[in-house]
Amino acid sequence: MEAFSDGVFAVAITLLVLSIAVPEARAGDLSGELLRTWPLLVAYAASFLTIGIIWLNHHVVFTHIRRVDRPLLILNLLLLMAVVLMPFPTDVLGHYLQSPEDRGVAAAAYSVASALMGITFGAVWTYAVYHPNLLGPHVDVRKARRSLPRFAGGTLVYVACIGLAFVSAPLVVALCGLTAIYYAFNQIPLTGPPAD
Amino acid sequence: MEAFSDGVFAVAITLLVLSIAVPEARAGDLSGELLRTWPLLVAYAASFLTIGIIWLNHHVVFTHIRRVDRPLLILNLLLLMAVVLMPFPTDVLGHYLQSPEDRGVAAAAYSVASALMGITFGAVWTYAVYHPNLLGPHVDVRKARRSLPRFAGGTLVYVACIGLAFVSAPLVVALCGLTAIYYAFNQIPLTGPPAD
Amino acid sequence: MEAFSDGVFAVAITLLVLSIAVPEARAGDLSGELLRTWPLLVAYAASFLTIGIIWLNHHVVFTHIRRVDRPLLILNLLLLMAVVLMPFPTDVLGHYLQSPEDRGVAAAAYSVASALMGITFGAVWTYAVYHPNLLGPHVDVRKARRSLPRFAGGTLVYVACIGLAFVSAPLVVALCGLTAIYYAFNQIPLTGPPAD
Amino acid sequence: MEAFSDGVFAVAITLLVLSIAVPEARAGDLSGELLRTWPLLVAYAASFLTIGIIWLNHHVVFTHIRRVDRPLLILNLLLLMAVVLMPFPTDVLGHYLQSPEDRGVAAAAYSVASALMGITFGAVWTYAVYHPNLLGPHVDVRKARRSLPRFAGGTLVYVACIGLAFVSAPLVVALCGLTAIYYAFNQIPLTGPPAD
Repeated sequence: MEAFSDGVFAVAITLLVLSIAVPEARAGDLSGELLRTWPLLVAYAASFLTIGIIWLNHHVVFTHIRRVDRPLLILNLLLLMAVVLMPFPTDVLGHYLQSPEDRGVAAAAYSVASALMGITFGAVWTYAVYHPNLLGPHVDVRKARRSLPRFAGGTLVYVACIGLAFVSAPLVVALCGLTAIYYAFNQIPLTGPPAD
Repeated sequence: MEAFSDGVFAVAITLLVLSIAVPEARAGDLSGELLRTWPLLVAYAASFLTIGIIWLNHHVVFTHIRRVDRPLLILNLLLLMAVVLMPFPTDVLGHYLQSPEDRGVAAAAYSVASALMGITFGAVWTYAVYHPNLLGPHVDVRKARRSLPRFAGGTLVYVACIGLAFVSAPLVVALCGLTAIYYAFNQIPLTGPPAD
Repeated sequence: MEAFSDGVFAVAITLLVLSIAVPEARAGDLSGELLRTWPLLVAYAASFLTIGIIWLNHHVVFTHIRRVDRPLLILNLLLLMAVVLMPFPTDVLGHYLQSPEDRGVAAAAYSVASALMGITFGAVWTYAVYHPNLLGPHVDVRKARRSLPRFAGGTLVYVACIGLAFVSAPLVVALCGLTAIYYAFNQIPLTGPPAD
Repeated sequence: MEAFSDGVFAVAITLLVLSIAVPEARAGDLSGELLRTWPLLVAYAASFLTIGIIWLNHHVVFTHIRRVDRPLLILNLLLLMAVVLMPFPTDVLGHYLQSPEDRGVAAAAYSVASALMGITFGAVWTYAVYHPNLLGPHVDVRKARRSLPRFAGGTLVYVACIGLAFVSAPLVVALCGLTAIYYAFNQIPLTGPPAD
C-alpha cells in the first residue's frame, strides 16, 4: 500500500518535467526561447514542491496508521487520482501564465486541482482519526482530531485561490508555493514525538 | 516480484494523465477548451479506478500466494502487459467519446483491453488455486476455488461491453466504472479473515 | 540497488506503451486506423516480453549475488542504460515494420539494441561468477560458470538478427519473441535448487 | 524516504529516453536519419551516467545517515527537483548539439542544470555532516567533513562548464561524462570501510 503510493507519488512528480518541451528556436535565438520558458519552470517548481510536501506529510500520516481497511484504501486511491492529475493543470498553468486573457482560467483550474488534493488528503486523515482502531497505539486521538483544522486550512487556501485566480494569477502561484512551504515546516502535532 | 508488479501498476496508472494534453485555445477561450476535455477526464477516471482496484485485488491475491513458480510469473507478466496497455485504449476512448461515428469502435476497443486485464488476472488466480502448493497454509482451497466465478463475473461484463459499445458508448464507460466500484467493496471471500 | 533496478525495469517496460499513439482517423474510419496499429502492438508485445524476461532472470541472478562492488554496480548501470533505451528502437520498429524500404534498417536497429541488453547482462553475470566472493555461499561456482554459454546464446541470436534483419524483418521479430519465451522457461541451472 | 528517492531517480533516468523521438524518414532514408540521432544518444548517455552515478553516491551517503529531520528532507526534495529537471536540458542539448549558433547556449543550460544537482547534493551532505546526531555511530565526523571539498569539486567542474560551453559544446559533454566516471570510481572516504 505505502510502496504503491510512494511509487505513484514518485512517477507523478517526475512526469511534471514533461510539460517543459524543447523550444523550437530560430538559429541563434535559443537563449531567448529558453528564457521565455520561465512560466513553465515556475509552474514546475510550484507543483513539485506541493506534491513533494504532500508526499512528506502522507508519509508522516501513515506512520500513525497501523491498519488499513477498504474505505481507507479507496480514499487513498482518490487522493492518488488527484495527485496523478496534477501534471495536467501544471501544464495548463505554465502555458497560459503569460496570456492576459486566459491566465485567470488557468490559475483557477490549477487551484481546483490543488483543492482536490487537499480535500482527498483531508478525507484520508479524517476517516482515520474517526476510526481509532486503524491508528497506532501511540496516537492521542484527541490530539489527532485537533490537527484536522490545520489540514482544512491548506484546502481553504486552495479554494480561495479559485476566486483569486481571476484577480491575479501570479498571486495564486505564490500562495500555492507559500502553502507548500508552510506545510513543509509547520506540522508539529503530527511530526512531533507521540502524544503522552 | 511484488515490488516489480507494484512499480508497473504505479507507472501505468500515472501515465494515464498523459492522454490529457493542454488544449490549444484561441485567446480568451481557455475555459471553453477546458470544459471540452471532459471526455478525457471521464476516461481517465474510469481507467484510474479500474487499474487501482485491480492493483488492490492483486495485492490481496498475493497475500494468499506464498511461493511463485515460472508459469505463475509468466501469467503475471501477461497481466502486467494488459495493464500497461491501458493508457492507449483510454486515450482512444477520451478522444472519440464525442464522435458519433467512432465512439462505438473506441468503446469496443476499450472493452477489449479491459477484458484482457480480466482474463489474465483470472488466469493468475485460477492457476494459483489449482496449484495449492503455491498457496499459504491459511487458504481454504475449496473456498478459494469458489471465488473463481466472481472473478469471471467482471470479465464477462467487459466481454459484454464489446457488443454493447455499438449500442451506447457512455453505457460502456458507466458499466466499467460500476464494475470497478463493485470489485472495490465486494471481494469478501478473498479479503475476509482466513477460512477455517 | 535491487529496488532501483526494479524501478527502472518497471518504468522502462511501461514507457513502451507511449509508442502507440492515438490514430487520427477520418470520421467513421477509427476501426480501420486501429487495425493498422498492429505493427506497433507487435513491437510492444515483443519488447514487453523481452524486458519482462530479462527482469525475471535479473532477479534470479541477484538472488545468487550477496555482495556488490563498484564495478558490478557500474556494469548493472550499463545494463539498465540498454534496457531504458529499448522504447526508442521499439518505436522505430513499430513505425517502419510495414515500410518495404526501411523495415530492414528498423529491425537491424532493434536487434542492435537487444544485443546491447544481452551483452551488458552477460557482463554482469560473467563479472559475478569470476568474483566468487560476491556470490552467495550456496552457489556452485563451476556450475555457475557453465551457465555462461547459455547467456551468450541469446546474445548471439540478437547479433545474428542484425544481419537477418535485411533478409526478413518479421523473422527478426519472431526470433526475438521466441528467444524471450525460451529464456522464460529454460534457465534451469540458475533457477533450480542450489547446487550441492 | 529512500524508497521515494529511489523511485524518483528511477523514473527521471528512464524519462531521458523520451527525448529520442522516432525520426520521420523519407522512404529508404531511415538509416541516414538514425545515424543523425547521434547527438541525442550522446546526450542520453551523458545524462544517464550522471544521474546513475549521483544515485549510487546518494545511496552511499544515506547508508551513513541514520535519522532524517525536516530540513534534510527539504534539501533532499530540492536535490530530487534538480534531478527530475534533467530530461529537459538533456533534450535541449541533444537537439541543438549540431547547431553552430545555439550549441553554446544548449551546453550552458545543460551545465547550469548539472550544477544545480551538484549544489543540492552538496547541501544534503554538508547539512548532514554538520548535524552529527543525524549520522550513524560508525561515521568519523572529521573524515566526513574532509570529504566535502571532493563533493564541491564536481560542482565546480559543472560551474566552469557554463563558461566553457561557449568555447566548445562537445568539450562540455566530454567533461560531464568524465566527471560522472570520476565519481563512479573515486569516492573512497565515503564508500570505504567505516573510519576507525
